[in-house]
Amino acid sequence: MSTEENNAAVRRLIEAAVQQFVVAFNRGDAAGVAQLYTEDGQILPSQSEPIVGRPGIQAFWRGAMEMGVKAAKLEPVEIEGHGSTAVEVGRYELYAAGQQRVDKGKYIVIWKLTQGEWKLWRDIWNTSLPPSA
Amino acid sequence: MSTEENNAAVRRLIEAAVQQFVVAFNRGDAAGVAQLYTEDGQILPSQSEPIVGRPGIQAFWRGAMEMGVKAAKLEPVEIEGHGSTAVEVGRYELYAAGQQRVDKGKYIVIWKLTQGEWKLWRDIWNTSLPPSA
Repeated sequence: MSTEENNAAVRRLIEAAVQQFVVAFNRGDAAGVAQLYTEDGQILPSQSEPIVGRPGIQAFWRGAMEMGVKAAKLEPVEIEGHGSTAVEVGRYELYAAGQQRVDKGKYIVIWKLTQGEWKLWRDIWNTSLPPSA
Repeated sequence: MSTEENNAAVRRLIEAAVQQFVVAFNRGDAAGVAQLYTEDGQILPSQSEPIVGRPGIQAFWRGAMEMGVKAAKLEPVEIEGHGSTAVEVGRYELYAAGQQRVDKGKYIVIWKLTQGEWKLWRDIWNTSLPPSA
């Protein structure tokens, strides 16, 4: 494959993995979300130290769901594949019941190709909403 | 060079570029900081839409300095080179006058090798401090 073809292929695979994240999240499946991260995956949430590993990641997303976040929308904006690493810059929106948007912001995910599957390795995001919102 | 040697070389170059960022920041040189980003560089600050390009990036860091941020400490934790792209996961601390720490958190920077120099291309961070701090 040419580099361009390979990049397009990686982009499709990452987009599919992002979609898996959304599907798992929106059915309230925190364990399923956590499985999409590498075993040594890390999330870097605001107002928190880094959370390392699937059990902690699962607990974090479970907590968000229990606080009323019912649905996530993720929009990959830029995806670049570099061998078994890929970088993604995207935008997210979070919704409570009744399709009420409770947050919007942006994220960067570093993906790793692990046993043939693209998994989230490092995941950081922050809100775009002003403090008063 | 072997991959490992190349990775070590990239790591040293990125660490040097991080140090350049700190030196420019700590002398209050927002224009110097902005020059360390690619021309199409983006910062993704909390409570803000993405800021695209050096003039906006300079204005953002100028604003932080004018709000009293006098010094930044940046600690690269993980750096990986992938051709002309590198990814860095790090920790930051921000200080006001009198070495008073006003923020600490973590960041991810995607670097691009541009005309022989590593430049920040995408830069996102968030605080690790709880809301009440």
